[in-house]
Amino acid sequence: MRAQVAEFMDSALARNTIIGVIVFNAIILGLETSPAVMARFGGILTIVDQICLWIFVVEILLKLYAHRLAFFKNGWNIFDFIIVGIALVPASEGFSVLRALRILRVMRVMSAAPSLRRVVEGFITALPGMGSVFLLMAIIFYIGAVIATKLFGPDFPQWFGDLGQSAYSLFQIMTLESWSMGIVRPVMEVHPYAWAFFVPFIMVTTFAVVNLLVGLIVNSMQDAHSEEDNAATDAYRDEVMAKLEAIEKRLEERG
Amino acid sequence: MRAQVAEFMDSALARNTIIGVIVFNAIILGLETSPAVMARFGGILTIVDQICLWIFVVEILLKLYAHRLAFFKNGWNIFDFIIVGIALVPASEGFSVLRALRILRVMRVMSAAPSLRRVVEGFITALPGMGSVFLLMAIIFYIGAVIATKLFGPDFPQWFGDLGQSAYSLFQIMTLESWSMGIVRPVMEVHPYAWAFFVPFIMVTTFAVVNLLVGLIVNSMQDAHSEEDNAATDAYRDEVMAKLEAIEKRLEERG
Amino acid sequence: MRAQVAEFMDSALARNTIIGVIVFNAIILGLETSPAVMARFGGILTIVDQICLWIFVVEILLKLYAHRLAFFKNGWNIFDFIIVGIALVPASEGFSVLRALRILRVMRVMSAAPSLRRVVEGFITALPGMGSVFLLMAIIFYIGAVIATKLFGPDFPQWFGDLGQSAYSLFQIMTLESWSMGIVRPVMEVHPYAWAFFVPFIMVTTFAVVNLLVGLIVNSMQDAHSEEDNAATDAYRDEVMAKLEAIEKRLEERG
Amino acid sequence: MRAQVAEFMDSALARNTIIGVIVFNAIILGLETSPAVMARFGGILTIVDQICLWIFVVEILLKLYAHRLAFFKNGWNIFDFIIVGIALVPASEGFSVLRALRILRVMRVMSAAPSLRRVVEGFITALPGMGSVFLLMAIIFYIGAVIATKLFGPDFPQWFGDLGQSAYSLFQIMTLESWSMGIVRPVMEVHPYAWAFFVPFIMVTTFAVVNLLVGLIVNSMQDAHSEEDNAATDAYRDEVMAKLEAIEKRLEERG
Repeated sequence: MRAQVAEFMDSALARNTIIGVIVFNAIILGLETSPAVMARFGGILTIVDQICLWIFVVEILLKLYAHRLAFFKNGWNIFDFIIVGIALVPASEGFSVLRALRILRVMRVMSAAPSLRRVVEGFITALPGMGSVFLLMAIIFYIGAVIATKLFGPDFPQWFGDLGQSAYSLFQIMTLESWSMGIVRPVMEVHPYAWAFFVPFIMVTTFAVVNLLVGLIVNSMQDAHSEEDNAATDAYRDEVMAKLEAIEKRLEERG
Repeated sequence: MRAQVAEFMDSALARNTIIGVIVFNAIILGLETSPAVMARFGGILTIVDQICLWIFVVEILLKLYAHRLAFFKNGWNIFDFIIVGIALVPASEGFSVLRALRILRVMRVMSAAPSLRRVVEGFITALPGMGSVFLLMAIIFYIGAVIATKLFGPDFPQWFGDLGQSAYSLFQIMTLESWSMGIVRPVMEVHPYAWAFFVPFIMVTTFAVVNLLVGLIVNSMQDAHSEEDNAATDAYRDEVMAKLEAIEKRLEERG
Repeated sequence: MRAQVAEFMDSALARNTIIGVIVFNAIILGLETSPAVMARFGGILTIVDQICLWIFVVEILLKLYAHRLAFFKNGWNIFDFIIVGIALVPASEGFSVLRALRILRVMRVMSAAPSLRRVVEGFITALPGMGSVFLLMAIIFYIGAVIATKLFGPDFPQWFGDLGQSAYSLFQIMTLESWSMGIVRPVMEVHPYAWAFFVPFIMVTTFAVVNLLVGLIVNSMQDAHSEEDNAATDAYRDEVMAKLEAIEKRLEERG
Repeated sequence: MRAQVAEFMDSALARNTIIGVIVFNAIILGLETSPAVMARFGGILTIVDQICLWIFVVEILLKLYAHRLAFFKNGWNIFDFIIVGIALVPASEGFSVLRALRILRVMRVMSAAPSLRRVVEGFITALPGMGSVFLLMAIIFYIGAVIATKLFGPDFPQWFGDLGQSAYSLFQIMTLESWSMGIVRPVMEVHPYAWAFFVPFIMVTTFAVVNLLVGLIVNSMQDAHSEEDNAATDAYRDEVMAKLEAIEKRLEERG
């Protein structure tokens, strides 16, 4: 019985049904953003949304029954479990954010559709190689935020009032959005040498981002390179070796 | 007769004539944007433009006659057919957009000039490999638009009033244009934790765009790599194999 | 006599002297931008600047004497000739632009210093491979400018008044500077569907720019790749072939 | 005794202790940016900060004792020495900048943690290869600043008043921040042909930056490529050579 449930849940039919429900649910949640639609069909939409949610709950319960604790060994299952769990929290008036987050359920399509799953897994496997650079950028941001808060905080509390605001402003500056006209030029009217902090900050963080990009490219290239090349090359090399050894042996025998 | 027409339409002479007419037509359509020129030469320009259009119509009719339904097997022919078809729709006063779109006729130069054709084909062949990432970005945008509409729509209807406006605003934010000074800082004055939605959104979409770029580079590199390398390497490997086999055979004979 | 002049002009001594004069002249021209310095040392600076200019004139005359018309076969010599020629045009009051362009003389350091020369030559050799993509972008810009002028010109003459203004605005939009808050949102208040023109325009031009970048990377990589690899690989392959042929020949002799 | 001190300072224990002190110190310095925290715990924080500083001083004195002048042969040691030295300068009221720079001490974590050290060393080794392009960009910026100051300085002193301001504005323009709406459009109202200076400037500097990026990618790729490939390929090639020579020798002996 358990084996059959497990087999059914892994079948293409079950997967495609779930993908269909997710897409259908996504459309329902999209329609709910329209006040006009909600005024006329609000009641039906809410009920249909609830039905979709219960289908997901049943799906997860069946998977839990089929795989028991092994269910939690797969990262994607944990992902599904949390997403559906969030949707079950009762969204009272005070938690309108939770109501908005119900749309995150649509992210389940990433775990259900194999092609998207592969893209997301590709993204995630790229992350660890960039760990050191991320840590370095975090340190640079922390140092930058402390300096900016101490130097410019008293005069520009709206941008550099505390560490959090400074970090946000520095992130904005790193993305180059309004960095000069919006922030650095006004700051330079009070602190004429502010450019000596901001211009190197931009250069260093941009250079670090570029290095992340370069690292990503080099890694992807090497993976692609070695996969493709080695099959043909290894076969050829083995054959050459076999032939050379056969010749040597034959010569030896006659020697 | 049909074979001769087909041959003539494929000749360099016919192609260059058509390219010439396209370029000439492009200049005419450019001149029509100037009110001063239109006031003095408006009548002539309109007539010349009509003549160019009829040359294109005749060209396509000849090709249709020569190739019959096989004409529609080539994507570029369908492209030409649609472009010229749009130009034939009568542009009444109410359809000033159609009048403006007549300039799209100039895009025919992409199908007529072989070097441009190759570049565009290169662009298009790069697209399917990016399909999964595009789908993923569409999902992220849909989720983002629903969340933004629900959370910020009531307070900022000019940016997040409905799903379409939210998607446009999120596209603007993804391009990093005025994302902070223009949108997120004003939003944060009402919803102080809005950065917790927008900053991750920027990071995820930027990272996805970077991965598109990396994928493009790796694909182009592999194509270039395998084409170039393999010719020489294969020849060498075949020769080594032939020599080794000759040696083995000779030893065998004498064995 | 001519051979000796040619040899001297190609010597490291002559080259370094000229580089020294260029750098010295650059400093003089930089000082001339300061009204305070000009008020006190204006006369001297102008004279020193004239002396530098005459040194360049003498250099070019000597090279012309040494190489005669072969002088013009080298692109860098033509570059030097034009730069110095511009500086000799009398800069009357009405031509203050020409006075400002005298600083272009500093670009001569690119032709004089071998390391810079190589970088610039690297840039220039990369250009022809991008010719088709550039042509394609020119066509896209022309089509975009005509459409924008016809559709939005009457309502927004400051941005899309004529073809030139439209092309400039589209270039700004391609660089993503204030494209939405500055231009497209105001336009959308009059033409609600303007995004259907601008968003695809941004996507297409950005994608074309990315393809330029990818092409550059692939080309540089292939150059670097083939140079480095082939030396070692070719030597190895020749040696293997020689050995195999020697073995075959020896077997044949004894056969 | 000296050898033992040297050994201890290089041990994982000493390194991890120092990293711990740096992180602890970073948190203290972060807390000092909050006026509320300073009002209540200001005295304690300042004392703890002083203790951290003295731990660093003792660490450097021990290293100096252990390695003597060889201490200064390592770039990272010089880095530590300067960072701690800055922190020792008495920060009187007039030097509030020095007080803010105390956070730079956190950068010592880059020299202490081996993984960060490697990333930073990777960044630094990438720099020399980009030297010529940097020099070229410096020349372009100098030429651009002189021209902009001469042409636009009198009318727009806030942006192009002197060489320094022009260089800053050109840097802003190179990052594409508000280049058109903020600077070039206002300038074009006085100098209608200003675009003929700024648009080529943007193209040239952007192209140079792209070439820096391409250079970085190609270099990293080659390093990765040669490291990975050569081990396996060299072993294979050596073996093939050995086998061929053995066969030749055997044939010779019998010859």
